[in-house]
Amino acid sequence: MIHDDLYYMDKAIHLAQHAASIDEVPVGCVIVCHGQIIARAYNKKEHSQQAIDHAEIRAIAQASRRLKSWRLEGCTLYVTLEPCMMCMGAIIQARIEKVVYGASDPKGGCANTVLSITDIHGFNHYPTIVSGVRQNECASLLKSYFKSKRKGKTA
Amino acid sequence: MIHDDLYYMDKAIHLAQHAASIDEVPVGCVIVCHGQIIARAYNKKEHSQQAIDHAEIRAIAQASRRLKSWRLEGCTLYVTLEPCMMCMGAIIQARIEKVVYGASDPKGGCANTVLSITDIHGFNHYPTIVSGVRQNECASLLKSYFKSKRKGKTA
Repeated sequence: MIHDDLYYMDKAIHLAQHAASIDEVPVGCVIVCHGQIIARAYNKKEHSQQAIDHAEIRAIAQASRRLKSWRLEGCTLYVTLEPCMMCMGAIIQARIEKVVYGASDPKGGCANTVLSITDIHGFNHYPTIVSGVRQNECASLLKSYFKSKRKGKTA
Repeated sequence: MIHDDLYYMDKAIHLAQHAASIDEVPVGCVIVCHGQIIARAYNKKEHSQQAIDHAEIRAIAQASRRLKSWRLEGCTLYVTLEPCMMCMGAIIQARIEKVVYGASDPKGGCANTVLSITDIHGFNHYPTIVSGVRQNECASLLKSYFKSKRKGKTA
């Protein structure tokens, strides 16, 4: 069955919701290969105390284990928040074909915001970038999370 | 005992040599905290079939396990090759204080070459960058490796 970007982004949103429920910054990610979800991950940085444990890095590692290859050509990565520099770099390293993200990240987004990947010349791979899919839902999740954290601090 | 950058870079070079000996692109990395080496890693991408298994990413994960924290403030990362976008991003995410690298990478170096990290505005952390330490040794290792690979292909 063929699904569209909204369907897969909803799956990523569910994973972000799970992250929020365990008090992690709510970011979720799925990787799709030939219509099939081959990796599902959420941000787990605080629980693991690993700066590299962003949703995208964990999903890329999972997808490579599944396909038994570091080359994720033909795959699409769906993530609720615009990838940071580390994750954008990992996407390039893994040769992921397409990245679809929800909310923009004015503090660190390296697909279009703080840095536009297409402005950098010299890489051997550039993924197609689609932005703003389920943008409001993805941004709301983050806003609610940070609002609750601030409340907790002032309570 | 206080050691200088050359001492730690030599340790990274030994790790790069090990990578070459198992047919991986020779890149080695150590992370130093208060004069002590807390992580040692080499590029392992082909063996693990993981695009994220660059020397720096593996060293950062190891250092965080050791310190039980994703925050690697006060740490210095020594790497034989200029970090790529993914690794530079991970260095920023982990708040590593200083990066010392050997050879420049004209194909993907994101400290100074393809991208200069200080040209990007908006990140919440910028490491100090020192380049060219044991540059010739680090570059020679890579040149020899790629030369032997080309020979193997034409043999």
